[in-house]
Amino acid sequence: MKTEFFEIELQTTDGTDILDITPEVEEKVLQSGIKVGNMTVFISGATAGVTTIEYESGAVNDLRRAIDGIAPRNTVYEHDQKWGDGNGYAHVRASLLGPSLVVPIHDGKPLLGTWQQIVVLDFDNRPRRRKVVIQTMGE
Amino acid sequence: MKTEFFEIELQTTDGTDILDITPEVEEKVLQSGIKVGNMTVFISGATAGVTTIEYESGAVNDLRRAIDGIAPRNTVYEHDQKWGDGNGYAHVRASLLGPSLVVPIHDGKPLLGTWQQIVVLDFDNRPRRRKVVIQTMGE
Amino acid sequence: MKTEFFEIELQTTDGTDILDITPEVEEKVLQSGIKVGNMTVFISGATAGVTTIEYESGAVNDLRRAIDGIAPRNTVYEHDQKWGDGNGYAHVRASLLGPSLVVPIHDGKPLLGTWQQIVVLDFDNRPRRRKVVIQTMGE
Repeated sequence: MKTEFFEIELQTTDGTDILDITPEVEEKVLQSGIKVGNMTVFISGATAGVTTIEYESGAVNDLRRAIDGIAPRNTVYEHDQKWGDGNGYAHVRASLLGPSLVVPIHDGKPLLGTWQQIVVLDFDNRPRRRKVVIQTMGE
Repeated sequence: MKTEFFEIELQTTDGTDILDITPEVEEKVLQSGIKVGNMTVFISGATAGVTTIEYESGAVNDLRRAIDGIAPRNTVYEHDQKWGDGNGYAHVRASLLGPSLVVPIHDGKPLLGTWQQIVVLDFDNRPRRRKVVIQTMGE
Repeated sequence: MKTEFFEIELQTTDGTDILDITPEVEEKVLQSGIKVGNMTVFISGATAGVTTIEYESGAVNDLRRAIDGIAPRNTVYEHDQKWGDGNGYAHVRASLLGPSLVVPIHDGKPLLGTWQQIVVLDFDNRPRRRKVVIQTMGE
């Protein structure tokens, strides 16, 4: 058993950017040499999240719209009143979605469904340079 | 430390089926022989999720109703307009709930509360044969 | 590689108490002696959850308000009709948020962002004495 640690760098835009990171993640799992175990995808930061989705524009837009309904951008947030950041909605969305995802590794690959991709959601109200951590564990 | 890999097969119905898999999960943890560590429950697929709940029909129906409110079945989804699957709502629900759950193992058992069960939620609009992955890690 | 197991005890109030447990978690990671690996934060129980947030009162209140919108306290729940607990809303919230969070450990510390804290949300309608499990894995 061993554990390894990788980073992926992303350039995001504002407006709830939803990015497919599956190819980069699979490459890191391959580099780790792990055949069986798991990996944790983690976002350091309080305005982004991680989940899986069938990465096609229809489903991605549907998810974005549902999230807009849960924590609308243009409503009053105490965070904005106190700090003037304008990204109160992004904090709420990130907390609800969560910053981490664990995926089993089998035969040297993350065990995703055929139509299931790993996505990072950047909720912030400005473009960001994001680091995503991929931490593998196994043998 | 070792890692092991198990599968549970489920037959689901349409209509946001919520299934208690705790007995099967506990059996796999027992088989793994792990006394201390953790396990990841993971659904390969983009229209189902995993969480915990007190598995009694009242709370289960309440959860189903709340999810219906977040991503209603009978509204317009771009995914359906593009692909005609009719399960756009299921994709959104699955992404929001997430496909994985990690539970510590202690004294050879998942460390759940007395009234806390592990459930798979199948959101798809047709009955499915589902495989759920249980991946144990520990010693 | 080794795995270790810690508990943190919390006294909560009713009314969706949101508590920052980051200092206690960091202390346990230090005690574990693990330099690289991960940790799972897990709540045994069906009426509480775990996530991350920038822990300042504005964002915390905004999150509480969004959760109130998703599963309001003062509406009809089947769980309450059957069991008379009055905490049906708490069960729904806990299932949606999820009981576990996995955070990578690097250089002996949980790899959180500067403005990202680990919080326990107790949704129950009465003060509770809660045990939170911190399970570390790594080397």
